[in-house]
Amino acid sequence: MNNHTDALTKQVFTLVSEIYAYGIREIVISPGSRSTPLAIAIEAHPKLKSWIHPDERSAAFFAMGLMKGSERPVAVLCTSGTAAANYTPAIAESNLSHLPLVVLTSDRPHELRGIGAPQAINQTNMFENYIHYQFDFPIADANEVQDYMADTVKFQMQKASQYLYGPHRGPIHLNLPFREPLTPNLEKVEWLTSDNKILPHYQKTTSINEISTIMQKRKGLIIVGDMQHQDVDQILTFATIHDMPILADPLSQLRREHHPNVVTTYDLLYRSGLSINADFIIRVGKPVISKKVNQWLKATEAFQILVQNNDRPDAFPKVPHVSYEMSANDFFRQLSEIPAVERKNWLEKWQSLEKQAHIKIKDHLRTATDESAFVANVLDKLTKDDALFVSNSMPIRDVDNLFIDCEAEVYSNRGANGIDGVVSTAIGMAAHKRVTLLIGDLAFYHDMNGLLMSKLNDINLNIVLLNNDGGGIFSYLPQKTAADSYFERLFGTPTGLNFEHAALLYDFTFKRFESIEMFKYAELSKFGSHIYEIMTNRDENLNQHQNLYTKLSDIINVTF
Amino acid sequence: MNNHTDALTKQVFTLVSEIYAYGIREIVISPGSRSTPLAIAIEAHPKLKSWIHPDERSAAFFAMGLMKGSERPVAVLCTSGTAAANYTPAIAESNLSHLPLVVLTSDRPHELRGIGAPQAINQTNMFENYIHYQFDFPIADANEVQDYMADTVKFQMQKASQYLYGPHRGPIHLNLPFREPLTPNLEKVEWLTSDNKILPHYQKTTSINEISTIMQKRKGLIIVGDMQHQDVDQILTFATIHDMPILADPLSQLRREHHPNVVTTYDLLYRSGLSINADFIIRVGKPVISKKVNQWLKATEAFQILVQNNDRPDAFPKVPHVSYEMSANDFFRQLSEIPAVERKNWLEKWQSLEKQAHIKIKDHLRTATDESAFVANVLDKLTKDDALFVSNSMPIRDVDNLFIDCEAEVYSNRGANGIDGVVSTAIGMAAHKRVTLLIGDLAFYHDMNGLLMSKLNDINLNIVLLNNDGGGIFSYLPQKTAADSYFERLFGTPTGLNFEHAALLYDFTFKRFESIEMFKYAELSKFGSHIYEIMTNRDENLNQHQNLYTKLSDIINVTF
Repeated sequence: MNNHTDALTKQVFTLVSEIYAYGIREIVISPGSRSTPLAIAIEAHPKLKSWIHPDERSAAFFAMGLMKGSERPVAVLCTSGTAAANYTPAIAESNLSHLPLVVLTSDRPHELRGIGAPQAINQTNMFENYIHYQFDFPIADANEVQDYMADTVKFQMQKASQYLYGPHRGPIHLNLPFREPLTPNLEKVEWLTSDNKILPHYQKTTSINEISTIMQKRKGLIIVGDMQHQDVDQILTFATIHDMPILADPLSQLRREHHPNVVTTYDLLYRSGLSINADFIIRVGKPVISKKVNQWLKATEAFQILVQNNDRPDAFPKVPHVSYEMSANDFFRQLSEIPAVERKNWLEKWQSLEKQAHIKIKDHLRTATDESAFVANVLDKLTKDDALFVSNSMPIRDVDNLFIDCEAEVYSNRGANGIDGVVSTAIGMAAHKRVTLLIGDLAFYHDMNGLLMSKLNDINLNIVLLNNDGGGIFSYLPQKTAADSYFERLFGTPTGLNFEHAALLYDFTFKRFESIEMFKYAELSKFGSHIYEIMTNRDENLNQHQNLYTKLSDIINVTF
Repeated sequence: MNNHTDALTKQVFTLVSEIYAYGIREIVISPGSRSTPLAIAIEAHPKLKSWIHPDERSAAFFAMGLMKGSERPVAVLCTSGTAAANYTPAIAESNLSHLPLVVLTSDRPHELRGIGAPQAINQTNMFENYIHYQFDFPIADANEVQDYMADTVKFQMQKASQYLYGPHRGPIHLNLPFREPLTPNLEKVEWLTSDNKILPHYQKTTSINEISTIMQKRKGLIIVGDMQHQDVDQILTFATIHDMPILADPLSQLRREHHPNVVTTYDLLYRSGLSINADFIIRVGKPVISKKVNQWLKATEAFQILVQNNDRPDAFPKVPHVSYEMSANDFFRQLSEIPAVERKNWLEKWQSLEKQAHIKIKDHLRTATDESAFVANVLDKLTKDDALFVSNSMPIRDVDNLFIDCEAEVYSNRGANGIDGVVSTAIGMAAHKRVTLLIGDLAFYHDMNGLLMSKLNDINLNIVLLNNDGGGIFSYLPQKTAADSYFERLFGTPTGLNFEHAALLYDFTFKRFESIEMFKYAELSKFGSHIYEIMTNRDENLNQHQNLYTKLSDIINVTF
């Protein structure tokens, strides 16, 4: 025991205590030497749960899944050097998803920076573009009075804590240089395990007066994207009293409610030629998945009101006329003071369209054999106790179009919409919920390393792997025809991988389905970890999707 | 055809032409939509070779391997969003390795930035901490005069080109926003395929007068690290005439020369208790691998001269007394003007130690059964036509200790010494050389996705996979005993993976070896792609390594 070890111990003891006190309960550690002081302190803490993940890229996405499953901030810890750089994709995503990822990077001490020492890259402000708060710690120095470091830790955690909860939440980065020897002495430490911090409180009072006039108009629409776990009851109450149709994105979780005002088929209707005029639109939560709706929102003259419970609301696809930074429940509770307007006829037109679209879609699915048929069947198999994690690219679009009767919760990484880290995020969430992951073969390949966490920690989940051997979504883009000669090489990118080997590597069972008839009779298991691979054909997927749009165009005869 | 397409075509045509003109011959493309204009222009170029890699993290490391194999700058191209963030680890490594990675990220146009649009993360200056040059392009705008964009492209490429060759080389980042429609019209384009650029020339004249006095002292040492393909003949000539011992790192490629002045066993000798005094040291190239030598260099009072052929020389492990930014050949040619000093006795002591160490090591290897025995046997199997790519962590240390008689070239990612991206870098290099990769199981797991490039492009290589089921190097650190109760979980991190499944997934043959006797009779194939898995035991590796140090301590009886 010496002064250096005392100072180091005090530093990591204080930091880990503060981390716990601010409500963090899980930390994903990637193995390394430089991170030893913190890793040991985390292990020694009586109430923190640690996860060990050797691939930092997957580890940070896994932490995002833990956050989505637990609704708490989650920390990640790694060693110095390029290890830390591997966190960048998940940090960029958590920034846009408003998820409070607490990034702890250990660093070489200052005397080893910038001179060519091993595993010493410039970590100061390294996530600058994506981080809400960052601090480069001083070294735990035996010559310092010990309280200087403890105070620094406490002060920095207090400052950072405003980004852990509420409207400002997002990733924070603490860079921690450690000098050797790296082993702290935690023998006599008494852990403080009470959650005793007062968190910053955020309240923004906004008057609804400025929108009360426009709200008297008839053609009003509520469009709801990802609500990020907010209560939704006031939206439904308001919509019922005011006869307002709700265009509900699958990530809003509103479709599960089967409320008569909820419209689910709007993306297909727009693709099939629907054109409407609205007087005003209340956009709630994050932007919706539907590209068609977003294009319409951008073009329409309708008055747009944005309600989003965070401090950097998403102006996309169009800067709204009025923006409310508050919870949806608070907003609609205030809005209920406005007298209700007669909108029965307007609402009924939407309800009629929705009903006809349901019939057409179900009719189409009776004979469909492409990816959409499989996706619809997966949705049929899920119950209200299931969480469906959906990969970006085609799966999220198919779920957007086909989530009609399903009662499962739906999740996705829709901050930056990347296909990276999807497997890891789903498995992180599966530590807290019963998860089915719906994913294409390229996204699955990209994060196969993420499967390790299931194997090592017995985290169970079902993976429905839509294998069209390449990038299916590109078939829907203009590049398909415009750049035909380059298409298969640049965009199709078939890998020809037999994923059964991946299943064997990571202890997943593996079943392959070549036809929808076979898959219809298959049950998704409630226990264990399973891959259900579905072989589809990109050209057939494209053709059958286009058939559906054609069929739906029959019902687009309504005038709004 | 419209004005927008004209402007876009002009932009990508000019950029791709410039890229070729500045000597880039290979581009690694990761599939995506936003990157379409450049991807198509690259494909259309008659002389550029494109590689397609779906995982951007591995893709950028693969490009590093191409650079190490071809000694040319190589470009990477990806779509917008987190895809680009996946490049960060390889960019950090190429910065420290002085490799001119040309990073082309496509971006959403400015009107979609910062407002919550999909796949739009803040890409401006996103690699700030690691990049030598960066430029955020304007959009190809139909309203601009076309020559404005062409001039911008040319001017930016000219500015960036100073970082593609010579002492300033390192990664550059061009961020390229593209607006839809994304398909250029290259039908009538006539490609300029002559390599007609005048590259910036760098010459730094330095006088050797200031070191001529210290050079008269007797105990002089030359220590050579990674020379990055410089000519070495003048070092050997100088050492011969001046009786100077050369401590040659395996990455210096000097050990292959079997020159009588070259010492290879210095790391083991230091570990076994060697202690010397030197009057002056000429450090050439990058810092050496040996931690012991670096510790000694840091502590010694000897006069230190650094000769490094780039503009930000590595001061590690100690700031030298004099630093020469010039090629080793130029330096030693100038130095040969200094009269030679009598050093026979000094040199012979080193030669005697080296000889005795060889005998002890070979004696030890006759009965050794641990990882070092396998590594030594791999070195025995290689010829002068082989390139050995060595992973960081334990393999590079074993190669440092055991590369005595071998004639293979040796490569490694020793910028930041990460275990990430090693598989990809080796496979990239294997596109240009016959490569054997020596790698531990954790580094192999970390970049298993990298194996795809071998499968898709028939790139052949041998992988010798040292499987001790976890992080072997940590056993050598003080944490092993100091943190015993946490050790296996935090540092050992066994994954229990059966890598035969990975071999099957990526079309590698797979052979597993449980004993050195079996492995001795195995031949490393000259064709195809193969994994030779060697099962070892971490505790046994530690014990036998320590035995070797003990045996060598017998010969440390010389006084310098």
